Amino acid sequence: MKARVTVTLKNGILDPQGKAIEGALKSLGIDGVASVRQGKVFDIELGANADKAKAEAVLKDAADKLLANTVIENYAIEVKG
Amino acid sequence: MKARVTVTLKNGILDPQGKAIEGALKSLGIDGVASVRQGKVFDIELGANADKAKAEAVLKDAADKLLANTVIENYAIEVKG
Repeated sequence: MKARVTVTLKNGILDPQGKAIEGALKSLGIDGVASVRQGKVFDIELGANADKAKAEAVLKDAADKLLANTVIENYAIEVKG
Repeated sequence: MKARVTVTLKNGILDPQGKAIEGALKSLGIDGVASVRQGKVFDIELGANADKAKAEAVLKDAADKLLANTVIENYAIEVKG
């Protein structure tokens, strides 16, 4: 079973990396970009016998404990089956 | 106009970070995870007057030149309008 966990910064949290990318895009002459915010994505393969509910529970546990810093980050779980 | 560029490693490319996360999840007692591969996600705001085709062209240019290392990474562009 395949799943994806996407971790992004909460609104209002400063993203220096995103700002650096904005600057770099401008210096490369790529116009039209107003803002950039960078996040992380985890493509996770779960054991074959996992059902969807159990998979979501495992992924929530993994995100809460390791993949995301829930103080400043949000995460979205997508189980693809 | 909002868009998202997701950058992931190509198949066959070793992902040491993903391996480290797999190990950490096991040591946290989170079972059921067979494999983890980490990537990057960029949430990009484009200028208001961009139409969808122009937005995709700008994002492709940004991904090719900066956001992704196209030798070892794939990218997916999603324009949300």
